[in-house]
Amino acid sequence: MAYKNVEGGVTAPKGFKASAVYAGIKSKKSEKPDMALLLSETATSCAAVFTTNKFCAAPVIIGREKLKAAKLRAIIVNSGCANAATGKEGIANADKIQNEAAKLLGLEPDEVIMSSTGTIGVQLPVEKMLEGVKKLVPLLDKKNGHDAAYAIMTTDTVSKEMSFELELSGGTVTMGAMCKGAGMIHPNMATMLAYFTTDAVISADVLQPMLKDAVDKSFNMTTVDGDTSTNDSLFLIANGASGVKVETEADKKAFKEALDYICIGMARKIAADGEGASHLMIVEAQNLRTLKDARLVAKAIAGSNLFKAALFGQDANWGRIIGAAGYSGADFDTEHLDCYLESCAGKIQVMKEGAGLVFDEDKAATILKEKDITVIVDFHDGKECATAYGCDLTYDYVKINGDYRS
Amino acid sequence: MAYKNVEGGVTAPKGFKASAVYAGIKSKKSEKPDMALLLSETATSCAAVFTTNKFCAAPVIIGREKLKAAKLRAIIVNSGCANAATGKEGIANADKIQNEAAKLLGLEPDEVIMSSTGTIGVQLPVEKMLEGVKKLVPLLDKKNGHDAAYAIMTTDTVSKEMSFELELSGGTVTMGAMCKGAGMIHPNMATMLAYFTTDAVISADVLQPMLKDAVDKSFNMTTVDGDTSTNDSLFLIANGASGVKVETEADKKAFKEALDYICIGMARKIAADGEGASHLMIVEAQNLRTLKDARLVAKAIAGSNLFKAALFGQDANWGRIIGAAGYSGADFDTEHLDCYLESCAGKIQVMKEGAGLVFDEDKAATILKEKDITVIVDFHDGKECATAYGCDLTYDYVKINGDYRS
Repeated sequence: MAYKNVEGGVTAPKGFKASAVYAGIKSKKSEKPDMALLLSETATSCAAVFTTNKFCAAPVIIGREKLKAAKLRAIIVNSGCANAATGKEGIANADKIQNEAAKLLGLEPDEVIMSSTGTIGVQLPVEKMLEGVKKLVPLLDKKNGHDAAYAIMTTDTVSKEMSFELELSGGTVTMGAMCKGAGMIHPNMATMLAYFTTDAVISADVLQPMLKDAVDKSFNMTTVDGDTSTNDSLFLIANGASGVKVETEADKKAFKEALDYICIGMARKIAADGEGASHLMIVEAQNLRTLKDARLVAKAIAGSNLFKAALFGQDANWGRIIGAAGYSGADFDTEHLDCYLESCAGKIQVMKEGAGLVFDEDKAATILKEKDITVIVDFHDGKECATAYGCDLTYDYVKINGDYRS
Repeated sequence: MAYKNVEGGVTAPKGFKASAVYAGIKSKKSEKPDMALLLSETATSCAAVFTTNKFCAAPVIIGREKLKAAKLRAIIVNSGCANAATGKEGIANADKIQNEAAKLLGLEPDEVIMSSTGTIGVQLPVEKMLEGVKKLVPLLDKKNGHDAAYAIMTTDTVSKEMSFELELSGGTVTMGAMCKGAGMIHPNMATMLAYFTTDAVISADVLQPMLKDAVDKSFNMTTVDGDTSTNDSLFLIANGASGVKVETEADKKAFKEALDYICIGMARKIAADGEGASHLMIVEAQNLRTLKDARLVAKAIAGSNLFKAALFGQDANWGRIIGAAGYSGADFDTEHLDCYLESCAGKIQVMKEGAGLVFDEDKAATILKEKDITVIVDFHDGKECATAYGCDLTYDYVKINGDYRS
């Protein structure tokens, strides 16, 4: 599916504005923006998924509750502080900031939601953030989608955005997206922080199952380090500003395909920018008996520390690939497995019918020098396939996380 | 429980002999012994647990089968080659080597078992190993327990052995043990390679459930990198040479406690010698509603890449501890959680009733400088407790596994 890309990221669809400021949540030395605001000028339909972590953050607790009211108009996001494991004080702090934003925007408190990302267990600097909100509101502008995406970054090295047009039977709609995430990435029913916007006319009850399905095959198939965050949240906001309805079955199919495209695209961006990563790893588990088996295999390989370290060393150590497949919990016949490594430099078979091949190590090394590496495990034991997204395990991952708080 | 330690490791119990040689499986430059033989002079009772990895190695497939015959007398172990993902040729190769050993030892083929550890997907160098067997048999001696433990090492930096005496109602029995394991450590119903010996008189049907229970609270609570091996095998061999029966309920209890002591002791040794590790991590999950919940929490924390990297950085980043507890799958109330970090340099509380404390960072740093670090998470939400064993994630782990095959 080829879409027409447009500028603007999360504010590309009609009727969306954003702003970003440095509020002082992060240390002065970075001076990187640490607060963002996203606004829809009109009422929206909204779908969302959240972390399954028991220690979910205050904003996740509040967000789940507010989503029931389904009146979302604005989202405040901060980096530098996760507001997780902060007790009742954390919830009260988030409420204060949301309410201030609602007041300044002329909205009901129920229409504003907040997301936080950063260090766990530290209270939000409320006074600084109330000042931040005051600065954010007058700066709201359609051209600030990128600034917002930049402000929500933590250890991300690049901002993660998409925006493109989609042709439906009634006309053109625009889709936009931003997300952040580089470490603590092993989503389970949700993901990182991600905000998708569209100006299509579509109801929340149609959006939610579409989003769930798209997330299951994208973010939920992504892993950087096996650690599921306390703050994972994904919002999909449709404000109908294009006036174009997602109406016919063909429209719904096209919209769902576009949503898959965003989710997979953003999941790839997160995996490629995994903390310390030097390689994006794409694992294709092919021809298993059930989708569940295929997903288990693909995700286990993408998450194997041993294979991740081998990939960093550009070592075609396929024993670790099948080791991970073997402990994935998936059911399969081991007798017919073929295994391949592929990149833009070529493709090499390293295993045939369940046993290792003697292969050209020089060719393998050339393939593994590239940034994006695809691992293909074909079980010839069914028809179900799944793809997982991950990255290698590097010295820099250890360095980044050996001293994250300072 | 204090036991009287004795010399000898796996050959400390009466009636056991061992030998070790360099057979040339590993590269010449190391010249480290790579084959070991363990023999009981008399018939044995035997219990065993094996890996649950679907791609289990040829020796595991054969071992499972032979254990049914329950006539074990001798075990051959090699390092340097795992004989996993080697198809029918791998099974035939293992059979050849076992049969040669049986012939030279004057035993039935069913009485000899083989274990392999090392690189996956490479065939055993059969000719070299048949020569190795010929050298091993005449070298068999009671004094070679340590040499055998040394020969089965791969990336282990120290050999892992225990031996001590246990007083039963009928007299003294001796227990011995050796094991190897440093990477690909995340046992599931089994572990690494481990061999426990005793000269107690005890039947296999009493041994097996005891072993299963002891393994569940030790090796199955140990993780180095989340990767479950294709070759995990644990054998417990009782040859009755002491003439002392494990007969009364008190004897069985004492024997089981000694078995727990070995299993936990060996699991700690493996975690402490985890690939690249600079810290042993002991995680005590306290006062949860079910044992399953307590085990899930303890093992998730011990396995968290993020906390493992923080521990390497000697950073008291308890947010990652509760992050891991939260995604462990355990059910608990988050409101009453207290969290402590402890080592021989002291103990510090970092979290109280579900929220972070402002604590003395200098004191925390002093505590985290020590090698053995205990993490205590007390949920005040039940009475079940569990302990898990792990290590930190270091540059050296990445280095070791970035180029394991060469």
